[in-house]
Amino acid sequence: MRGKFIVLEGLEGAGKSTAHQAVLAKLEELGIKDVVLTREPGGTPLAEKLRHLIKYDLEEPICDKAELLMLYAARVQLVENVIKPALAEGKWVLGDRHDMSSQAYQGGGRQIDRKILDNLKRTVLGDFEPDLTIYLDIDPAVGLERVRGRGELDRIEQQSLDFFYRTHQRYLELTQNNDKAVIIDAEQPLENVTADIKQAVENFVKKAK
Amino acid sequence: MRGKFIVLEGLEGAGKSTAHQAVLAKLEELGIKDVVLTREPGGTPLAEKLRHLIKYDLEEPICDKAELLMLYAARVQLVENVIKPALAEGKWVLGDRHDMSSQAYQGGGRQIDRKILDNLKRTVLGDFEPDLTIYLDIDPAVGLERVRGRGELDRIEQQSLDFFYRTHQRYLELTQNNDKAVIIDAEQPLENVTADIKQAVENFVKKAK
Repeated sequence: MRGKFIVLEGLEGAGKSTAHQAVLAKLEELGIKDVVLTREPGGTPLAEKLRHLIKYDLEEPICDKAELLMLYAARVQLVENVIKPALAEGKWVLGDRHDMSSQAYQGGGRQIDRKILDNLKRTVLGDFEPDLTIYLDIDPAVGLERVRGRGELDRIEQQSLDFFYRTHQRYLELTQNNDKAVIIDAEQPLENVTADIKQAVENFVKKAK
Repeated sequence: MRGKFIVLEGLEGAGKSTAHQAVLAKLEELGIKDVVLTREPGGTPLAEKLRHLIKYDLEEPICDKAELLMLYAARVQLVENVIKPALAEGKWVLGDRHDMSSQAYQGGGRQIDRKILDNLKRTVLGDFEPDLTIYLDIDPAVGLERVRGRGELDRIEQQSLDFFYRTHQRYLELTQNNDKAVIIDAEQPLENVTADIKQAVENFVKKAK
């Protein structure tokens, strides 16, 4: 049986790393092991090099479309060389970000036209998409405050607060009324966030089996 | 007055470097100086890093779409950060390859669907295109024989002869009946090739003025 592709999405400081552990623990409890872990941009040798250029290369300003195309180059490399083969072998894949990040950050944050994004997504990925997206919802100001404690910010994290509010707005549009997405309130106490995530994973696995 | 964008296109071994000198010499003779020189993929710090990944990174197989997207990322960065600003200042730009290379190599050679290519071109570049393309036509076998003398081949040059015949076929389709392209027979003796190129440049400049 084909595996399933679960993706974690959310703004900086929403708690994706902690959520990651919760998803894996719940999957293991339900007998789903050897989960393939990916992150975007990245997850293959070439995609990691693109990640580095996108996030840390400050030698010249990167135009919005070049950034977008590099993100999709990294994504299609990961999808074709890692995610699709794993799913075909029956393995489950847990992704730290996927296409929704580009929709939210480049579409919402950078305000790239929706038609360009839709077009590119369809051209590059066809109808490939995650089976479940767990979106950790947090107010951008709260999330960024959490991130500041961690040290230096990368090129994306250095954007203005407005950028993140537009990104947040687009995340909500993309996840509300989306039956393949679950919205988790990431401003709750940690144990409640974890409990909600585990519940969402359990509901999904039961339905999938 | 806006400058003009002239591009040299052709297969490996067609003689682009020699042609480059001929175009520059003729432009200078006609009073067009300070020509901005570009090459693709490349021509900006970021685009040169992408060039390196595309041509020399052999750590993992690069899927066709990732290659295509990286080429367009490099291209849009070059167009937005270098070519358009130069043209707006009234400077002329001479490019070693541009979009037609992707149409020929990725469309013809790699057989990526025409719709995908058209879509991507329109999405990324809009209606931006060279004012003149000088296409150096050579039989792929003849061109590759010339290149072999130069030393190690890059990832693209290592493709099969069939790949280059398909690329050649697409180049012909794109340049025949194209009033912004001139086809130069690059298998002639060098002095005739150079004379044809200089004539093409002169015709173009006279019309442009």
